[in-house]
Amino acid sequence: MKKIILDLDTGIDDTLAIAYALGSGEAELVGITGTYGNVTVDQGVRNALAVAELFGHPEVPVYRGVDHPLTRDTFTVSAGSAFIHGNNGIGEIDIPDANREPESEPAVDFIIDAVKTYGKELTYIPTGALTNIATALRRAPEIRNLFGSIVLMGGALTVPGNVNAWTEANISQDPEAADYLFRSGVRSTMIGLDVTMQTLLTRRQTQRWRDLDTPAGRFLADMTDYYIHAYETTAPNLGGCGLHDPLAVAAALDPTIVATLPINLKVDLDGATRGRTIGDYDRLADPFKTTNVAIAVNASRFLDDFMHRVTAVAEQH
Amino acid sequence: MKKIILDLDTGIDDTLAIAYALGSGEAELVGITGTYGNVTVDQGVRNALAVAELFGHPEVPVYRGVDHPLTRDTFTVSAGSAFIHGNNGIGEIDIPDANREPESEPAVDFIIDAVKTYGKELTYIPTGALTNIATALRRAPEIRNLFGSIVLMGGALTVPGNVNAWTEANISQDPEAADYLFRSGVRSTMIGLDVTMQTLLTRRQTQRWRDLDTPAGRFLADMTDYYIHAYETTAPNLGGCGLHDPLAVAAALDPTIVATLPINLKVDLDGATRGRTIGDYDRLADPFKTTNVAIAVNASRFLDDFMHRVTAVAEQH
Repeated sequence: MKKIILDLDTGIDDTLAIAYALGSGEAELVGITGTYGNVTVDQGVRNALAVAELFGHPEVPVYRGVDHPLTRDTFTVSAGSAFIHGNNGIGEIDIPDANREPESEPAVDFIIDAVKTYGKELTYIPTGALTNIATALRRAPEIRNLFGSIVLMGGALTVPGNVNAWTEANISQDPEAADYLFRSGVRSTMIGLDVTMQTLLTRRQTQRWRDLDTPAGRFLADMTDYYIHAYETTAPNLGGCGLHDPLAVAAALDPTIVATLPINLKVDLDGATRGRTIGDYDRLADPFKTTNVAIAVNASRFLDDFMHRVTAVAEQH
Repeated sequence: MKKIILDLDTGIDDTLAIAYALGSGEAELVGITGTYGNVTVDQGVRNALAVAELFGHPEVPVYRGVDHPLTRDTFTVSAGSAFIHGNNGIGEIDIPDANREPESEPAVDFIIDAVKTYGKELTYIPTGALTNIATALRRAPEIRNLFGSIVLMGGALTVPGNVNAWTEANISQDPEAADYLFRSGVRSTMIGLDVTMQTLLTRRQTQRWRDLDTPAGRFLADMTDYYIHAYETTAPNLGGCGLHDPLAVAAALDPTIVATLPINLKVDLDGATRGRTIGDYDRLADPFKTTNVAIAVNASRFLDDFMHRVTAVAEQH
């Protein structure tokens, strides 16, 4: 069975990713590590604990991660993130705090230990700032080639960004961390806006969860409707909300759901396009490509699969 | 036999594209239309006439095209273009003027006529500013679906630009014209820096032309060495010069030389990234994709084929 770690800034689509992972019988969620972006680390960890309990999995350990970018000392949630995910990160919906605290072990230590313990069985799925993985790789370079796979939600290669015309939100939080990962020689798969903006959920689907009349179903429906409402404002032509983070989990469990381009990436750190993910000319001719960028997705198969797995979790809790 | 039109701002790699086309037995070069970019229309037309004659093909008609961008009244060669191609566009090498003038018919009229005459047999290959094709499509919308194919050299989707971090030179000359083509519904194939920067020529190859000891061989060697020298300054890590325009001709004649991503493109016209070619969110979910962007190339097969065809022309003249 695949062991997965979700590295989340638990906002709305992160919560959907937790539900997707818990609804996936072929994967064991061995831990959630907290990062920042949609919310602070503290808020995200609180949400992850609460959501895991609501979804019937209080046994999943949650770890606090690095709470600010590599090149800065602090992090503040942007107005844009607060608008899209709500001030509490889960669409202003109230759910009870969990009956437990996060683990005392820091997220970076847990990641390093987990890679050493599980090796190729382990899939690491970051869907927020990439600070935790960059810090782990710097601190313990011996883990570089031990991962099963790293499948990240972030970036935009063939389409514009969502923070501005060239930067995607997760990469924008810590461009140096993302650049470090892409240039580290460690293999990764990038699930960016190229594909996640093709996987749209609408109120028709959230109503199915509401109609289950369970606590989890009502929560998922109300929270996701908040997200869809935000998308109606920021991307009125889209007709739904992008299922960013769940698609990364799906592609980690079944790589055939996307088609990928092997390419060596960098992140622009200087100049007008800071935060852009783009091909690295210095490694363009290198036959060894460290990143596979998803450039196409079987959106209807993913959406069916997503609804099947998340609805199963919502039904039971 | 395929009929091809080359729409050129005849600088150095445009000249190599002419040689490649003339060395291609499966294609008939029915005309060269002049655009601007590396040089002015007048200089490019002069060069195309002279080069066609030197290569033993004084029968190929050359037409003057629109000499400035859609949204401006004039065009001036940039310092960067003059550095890369030389002030005369062909590496400061002197070759005799042709014994003829360009055709009196304007390029745009010729393009419209040729599409109506040859239809699906016609492949149109623009390798400079896209002003002529945009003007033709505006003036004669009835030709939109008549083309065999349009294979353009220009743009950069997965790598940075060469004018600045986001803009490729040909697109930068007339972003509005390129955007018009990409959003017109007309199918096209984009051969951009994504692939052309992987097709490198070195002094080892140009020496083979010089060793032929023919006028065409010496000219091709000296001109291309000028280009390689410029690349040694602007892209010292590359180890050669990019074969931009010839690759577009090669991909037009044998599409299997590249792998392509079907995507609906736009050109950023406003904001910091003006001139960038990027996916268009408004048509992301549209199953009909009008552009195929080359994202991988069989560089060694192309280079062999390029040397075979161009050397055949150089040997005979």
